[in-house]
Amino acid sequence: MLERFKILLEAKNYAQLKLELNDMYPQDIALLLDEFWADDERQALILFRLLTKENAAEVFVEVSSDTQEYLINAFSDAELKSVFDEMFLDDTVDVIEEMPASVVSRIINQSDPETRKLINQILKYPKDSAGSVMTVEYVSLKRNWTVKECFDCIRRQAVDKETIYTCYVTDETRRLLGVVSVKTLLLNDYDTIVETIMETDVISADTYADQEYVASLFSKYDLTAVPIVDQENRIVGIITVDDALDVIEEEATEDIEKMAAIRPSDRPYLEQSVWQIWLNRVPWLLILMVSATFTGLIINSYESKLAAISTVLFACVPMLMDTGGNAGSQASVTVIRALAIGDLEPKDVFKVMFKEFRVSILLGLVLALACFAKLQLIDRLLFRFDGYDVVTSLVVSLAMFITIVLAKFVGCLLPLFAKKIKLDPAVVASPFITTIVDALSLIIYCTISIAILS
Amino acid sequence: MLERFKILLEAKNYAQLKLELNDMYPQDIALLLDEFWADDERQALILFRLLTKENAAEVFVEVSSDTQEYLINAFSDAELKSVFDEMFLDDTVDVIEEMPASVVSRIINQSDPETRKLINQILKYPKDSAGSVMTVEYVSLKRNWTVKECFDCIRRQAVDKETIYTCYVTDETRRLLGVVSVKTLLLNDYDTIVETIMETDVISADTYADQEYVASLFSKYDLTAVPIVDQENRIVGIITVDDALDVIEEEATEDIEKMAAIRPSDRPYLEQSVWQIWLNRVPWLLILMVSATFTGLIINSYESKLAAISTVLFACVPMLMDTGGNAGSQASVTVIRALAIGDLEPKDVFKVMFKEFRVSILLGLVLALACFAKLQLIDRLLFRFDGYDVVTSLVVSLAMFITIVLAKFVGCLLPLFAKKIKLDPAVVASPFITTIVDALSLIIYCTISIAILS
Repeated sequence: MLERFKILLEAKNYAQLKLELNDMYPQDIALLLDEFWADDERQALILFRLLTKENAAEVFVEVSSDTQEYLINAFSDAELKSVFDEMFLDDTVDVIEEMPASVVSRIINQSDPETRKLINQILKYPKDSAGSVMTVEYVSLKRNWTVKECFDCIRRQAVDKETIYTCYVTDETRRLLGVVSVKTLLLNDYDTIVETIMETDVISADTYADQEYVASLFSKYDLTAVPIVDQENRIVGIITVDDALDVIEEEATEDIEKMAAIRPSDRPYLEQSVWQIWLNRVPWLLILMVSATFTGLIINSYESKLAAISTVLFACVPMLMDTGGNAGSQASVTVIRALAIGDLEPKDVFKVMFKEFRVSILLGLVLALACFAKLQLIDRLLFRFDGYDVVTSLVVSLAMFITIVLAKFVGCLLPLFAKKIKLDPAVVASPFITTIVDALSLIIYCTISIAILS
Repeated sequence: MLERFKILLEAKNYAQLKLELNDMYPQDIALLLDEFWADDERQALILFRLLTKENAAEVFVEVSSDTQEYLINAFSDAELKSVFDEMFLDDTVDVIEEMPASVVSRIINQSDPETRKLINQILKYPKDSAGSVMTVEYVSLKRNWTVKECFDCIRRQAVDKETIYTCYVTDETRRLLGVVSVKTLLLNDYDTIVETIMETDVISADTYADQEYVASLFSKYDLTAVPIVDQENRIVGIITVDDALDVIEEEATEDIEKMAAIRPSDRPYLEQSVWQIWLNRVPWLLILMVSATFTGLIINSYESKLAAISTVLFACVPMLMDTGGNAGSQASVTVIRALAIGDLEPKDVFKVMFKEFRVSILLGLVLALACFAKLQLIDRLLFRFDGYDVVTSLVVSLAMFITIVLAKFVGCLLPLFAKKIKLDPAVVASPFITTIVDALSLIIYCTISIAILS
């Protein structure tokens, strides 16, 4: 594909290029432009200028922010205006949020006063709030209109609206009275008054609501759009299901990153600079490394006593700590995800504890047994290491059992506790829990060993 | 809420109950019924029987599968038929997949032959394939119809279709010719022929396509429905955006579980039995524990040599191993998620390696410096432990630097390699990589220590 367009470009066969390019989906054209941009910026610009007016705006929204910045700087004022005039307001705001100040002022300056006011209004909402992701292009109807009048209004406005399938009935002060779908309109006679068929129990969200909460409304109630209202219940915008899809994907990525001790980033991996990646990873690595001081302290204080008993005891420390960490993160990650998708709430804490307790007993028994078998069969019989006598192996297996029960306990409780005190459960996930479980399991292990073996 | 309904139930105020219950959203009624079911099954049944016919089907789809099973067993044949007749076919199949054989045959027996045939057809598609999640209730139009004829057809069928906003134009053999939205229909005159306004370049998916792939089409192309076709391009069903939302959430959960060394489960946490949870967690814990044999082997073989040099060296092992594990999973989790949402492909391997290499150098320098500072300031000056001299601290810091560079290298390469050989990248995540990094970092650490210090 890339090759074919390169050949056409070199042959300056613009007529053919224009034809083939505009025949593709905007999202695919955007991917192609990004590749051209990475290769030779000017070729990306030439291709962009071959797009039809409608395609140009749609493609512009989809290309990477680096390509966007390059294109805006290369645009004439007329080009800039023509692209942004075709865009929906939520997309304009998305672009603005990624651009440096000089580019932003160029975008703001070319827009008409009305749009400028709206852009500034949306930019004021906090990041990740419903207000910051909503769009203002929705269909609003009057309560006393007939179905026919509604359809006339929809037909007039359809081209400029992000969705026409859910329409909002408002009073003179834009207060939200009800919602009606095109399906309902189609199923009723032309002279029915919309007020009589609209749904008045509207699921809406506040402009300051968390985007994650709004996205959860979509999956819970199978909606295609949610109206965003201010504190007086006046509709100020809508969020459509395609934005909800993006939010759900974004929030899952954020949670995954937090669980892996990374500060979340908005940008795709390949678009992040080395410095950004470094900055997002270094804080937790440092914190976790320094917190390993505790583990070191414990080892230091038990070292001589353990060594006096058996050198074998030390060789088993990594296995115990790793297994404890794994068992703990299994529980914590399960609970964190269940909290995130709404399967669990902090009030379920006793159900969770009872379930994890029974699971941990079963897991602990199997793992302790396997651990004993491994020490006796692999380390003693196969490798013929010294010191793996039955009593020592039993002590290690017992420590394994207790470590797993404890790891599950810490692993399931910590995220629930975090949620309860309004912290993000994802940040207390695996790495954090591993550190705690490491320290606890070491103390248990050393105490048991000394108590039984010395 | 629960309390209020309990009081009404005890007072046998069914009229009021019926009124208040049916005024709620089906999804909220379902949550309430699940709570009643957990408390007293019969009360849930009484409440269910107070629902209107339309609400009954919608609520039934939303309650937990345990409640569903109880309700089906309590239903008369007539009740069963009335609920399932109102349901969309994809929901019926979802229910069937969760039920024991005896319940399934009751459901199948009450349905008419046509539905039975369709159910069996959908059940034949592999789990997680497009065919298994699609619904067969879509609007199909004929190519030579006018817009007016199309609207007439949509009005007739609207009640029974999952979505009417995207309509499919087919020929006599159900072959997919094009797609037209209600928006396009509304924007054209009543006597326009649909063939002249339909989009012929349709984004569709094969019945055997992975549901994750189909879901990615929704977020990439901002669609509200995707037609599912067989190998002769005949349309057999559609997948709507609400199903795509569920798939995206489900797949993210699966990836998160796999990364935490858990075999993924379809059911919500609280609905899983202790045995199921145990079964999903024990295999990886066992594998990872046994694989710690390598770490043990390494420690065993270096033990005496290290001890001869300095007891301090051993106390630093957990810190090195933990930090290496954390650094490795940061890289692997980032790459796995980027692969899952389509930001990365295996062909980007060199870009990723170069990026991770630079990041790892920066991270390694900071961590090595911090490690040196920690050993000298905390362990030597603050706690006054023996043996933390400058040279030993330098050796530990050097091992830290190398461990991090190596961890990032393994962490980014392994998922890409897994993807390349068509394995699921998520299963090679954190725990697996931790084991490899542990072994590697131990070898490096011991080798360096012995080379420099002895």
